[in-house]
Amino acid sequence: ELFVLTYGALVAQLCKDYEKDEDVNACLDKMGYSIGIRLIDDFLARSAVKRCRSYSETADMIAQVAFKMYLGVTPSVSCSSAVGNEFSLILDKNPLVEFVEELPAERASLCYCNLLCGVIRGALEMVHLAAEVTFLQDRLRGDAVTEIGITFLRKPEDRKHKRNK
Amino acid sequence: ELFVLTYGALVAQLCKDYEKDEDVNACLDKMGYSIGIRLIDDFLARSAVKRCRSYSETADMIAQVAFKMYLGVTPSVSCSSAVGNEFSLILDKNPLVEFVEELPAERASLCYCNLLCGVIRGALEMVHLAAEVTFLQDRLRGDAVTEIGITFLRKPEDRKHKRNK
Repeated sequence: ELFVLTYGALVAQLCKDYEKDEDVNACLDKMGYSIGIRLIDDFLARSAVKRCRSYSETADMIAQVAFKMYLGVTPSVSCSSAVGNEFSLILDKNPLVEFVEELPAERASLCYCNLLCGVIRGALEMVHLAAEVTFLQDRLRGDAVTEIGITFLRKPEDRKHKRNK
Repeated sequence: ELFVLTYGALVAQLCKDYEKDEDVNACLDKMGYSIGIRLIDDFLARSAVKRCRSYSETADMIAQVAFKMYLGVTPSVSCSSAVGNEFSLILDKNPLVEFVEELPAERASLCYCNLLCGVIRGALEMVHLAAEVTFLQDRLRGDAVTEIGITFLRKPEDRKHKRNK
């Protein structure tokens, strides 16, 4: 809860600093990225997980190990593309918004938890997985669930293939 | 660690926003205060502690229950005044600065963890204890230990006495 409230203070400060929701969202994503590229070491050390062999395994790892470890919740994972590089993490409960009742009307486009997207993106990049990570749905904005979309941008196989040349 | 890094992002943002260390410190304290007045409910609910009967018990409670619960460390407590209203929490290890090597030269007066002072002050106020809370020593600023000073400003007995009038 100290974390949740501190995160709220951070978002509130950024809302003071930036008039446009888009700028706050971008700033949270950027901060998250810086956090992700450092947090990955802690994650790998503490989780002692093995190397993932597929995007699907990677998405499960983020949901079941990383979210559990850092936020205490386990989102459900669904694959949302035939190609198998797009995944959704569905959060029924988002601990980060525990103390947020609703977004103020003038902040309707705020992605309150956008830091998380940056964290995931940064952490994945450090294990050589480029990905786009965005909020697809957000209960704070009136959606039924909170959904984080992860789109992996290159296949690990491609890189392995390059290395073998 | 996600919390620790997020806290770092908050401090970094405030350093961008305010040129003077004093302003950053004041802002962290103010934010902490807002957090403390909300966090106290969570603390009382989760800890199920009984009412403290003295300043000394209160200081021990902060160190042994609250710090343990929210930061995972237990500072040692010492009473530093004959009157018995001044206490020091001594932290050998401060988890909030885990990723901070040292303060940059131009930020020599920054109380990096000043949020904590505000949190304690806010939380105490909600249980009707006015207190001044400040960093007396900080390893980040070259001191041997990190020391948070709590000075209680009124005795609960005084208030009880007033109520009985």
